[in-house]
Amino acid sequence: MPETFAEKIAQALRKSALCVGLDTDREKLPKPLRSRLEGVLKFNETIIEATSQYAGAYKINFAFYESLGAEGWNILKHTVDSARRRDPSILLIADAKRGDIGNTAEHYARAVFEELGFDSITVNAYMGYDSVEPFIRNPQKGAFLLCLTSNPGSADFQYFSDGQIRFYERMALKTVEWNRHDNCGLVVGATHAEEMAGLRKIAGHMPFLIPGVGAQGGDLESAVRINRQEDHSLALINVSRAVIYASSDVDYAEAAAKKAEYFFNQIVSILR
Amino acid sequence: MPETFAEKIAQALRKSALCVGLDTDREKLPKPLRSRLEGVLKFNETIIEATSQYAGAYKINFAFYESLGAEGWNILKHTVDSARRRDPSILLIADAKRGDIGNTAEHYARAVFEELGFDSITVNAYMGYDSVEPFIRNPQKGAFLLCLTSNPGSADFQYFSDGQIRFYERMALKTVEWNRHDNCGLVVGATHAEEMAGLRKIAGHMPFLIPGVGAQGGDLESAVRINRQEDHSLALINVSRAVIYASSDVDYAEAAAKKAEYFFNQIVSILR
Repeated sequence: MPETFAEKIAQALRKSALCVGLDTDREKLPKPLRSRLEGVLKFNETIIEATSQYAGAYKINFAFYESLGAEGWNILKHTVDSARRRDPSILLIADAKRGDIGNTAEHYARAVFEELGFDSITVNAYMGYDSVEPFIRNPQKGAFLLCLTSNPGSADFQYFSDGQIRFYERMALKTVEWNRHDNCGLVVGATHAEEMAGLRKIAGHMPFLIPGVGAQGGDLESAVRINRQEDHSLALINVSRAVIYASSDVDYAEAAAKKAEYFFNQIVSILR
Repeated sequence: MPETFAEKIAQALRKSALCVGLDTDREKLPKPLRSRLEGVLKFNETIIEATSQYAGAYKINFAFYESLGAEGWNILKHTVDSARRRDPSILLIADAKRGDIGNTAEHYARAVFEELGFDSITVNAYMGYDSVEPFIRNPQKGAFLLCLTSNPGSADFQYFSDGQIRFYERMALKTVEWNRHDNCGLVVGATHAEEMAGLRKIAGHMPFLIPGVGAQGGDLESAVRINRQEDHSLALINVSRAVIYASSDVDYAEAAAKKAEYFFNQIVSILR
């Protein structure tokens, strides 16, 4: 079993660069699962079972569980346990976009890494180093820092420039500087292929987490090509809605498996 | 009862500009409360009872509850209910520093405003407008956007400048632009008095939430003077640790009441 985060993500990427995003919205579940809260957990377990052979990682979006109240937190925990049972070396990413002053960030890190058992977390580093350090202190755990995001609002702040570099590039440079334990990564949206190529030069071999493929329309082929290193990928390509809601009917597991297989094969064929 | 967020915060500020931060760390509780999780709720209820006559708002730091697991989420909810029972017009701020793409931010907004019943939330707007909009869509609810924070790491990114304005100033300008429902505010650390005066000019009458007084050493007097408008304050001055951990002994309620009264009186005397 890999020990450090660097080893964990290397192993995950060798298995598959596909990351399946569990943005599980109760209202989008197949009807028979919608009536009870436990339907969300049942759905996650079924999706994990159906897709785990194609996935190197799962990214679990906290918002969808927090909106369910305390029981959502239990579902989060059981989803983690369930993915772990299925594949002990699967990489689990808490998509929580946390970030706060040092003593507060320590509590967020404890919640995500110790209480819930995730391997890594997405972090919003606007508050600077002391808001990130508690998430990267332990070499066994890792953090993906928001750099250039896939949404329309990314233009509001992330391109702000001092005439030489843009803000998202400064974020990448700082992350490289902070990456002493080889456990930092960057979130770079698939909707920005050109900028991603520039970021890959700044970041060396640092892993990227790439959202925006699928429902958001990002470019899978560019994302894979830019992050190819020999026969494997330096980036996890996240797909959420296009996989987990491939069907809203009783065949949702088969449909999700097919979609995951499709993305897996696409990535492998581009890597060749 | 006030209807809009603008009315709610105006009423809160007329009562008191002191915001008490419930960063309740189980390990710092008085011994008799430490052994059981419910001790955290008991502590919060006692602190609220002891301080509510001096406080216009409570700011509840989510990290400290998330690190307790699902039960922490229940404690959050009961703390909100308890503060509301004590003073139905108290302003309750979810210090959660959320921010994500639109469909995800909607779920965070639902969690904080509907599931938990807060009036407002702190938001990290690095991802831009669509990550903020779900939090400010409803004029009854409000959002304080991180602008210039009180921690050492604030220097890493927030002062990044295009030669004309710095990043935190751009954040303030964008927030002014987005403030159509008069329900936006800014988080401005008390550790940056000079910059705060500049931000007050950009922000007009927009409310500030000011952390950093007390344990972090920020300057209370400047914060109050800069945000004074006639006889009242346009800013909530948050104090967390210096009030709630005023004593770690059985007299913690009396000690917290005395500290809250002290800060209340300090603010009133500076406003005069």
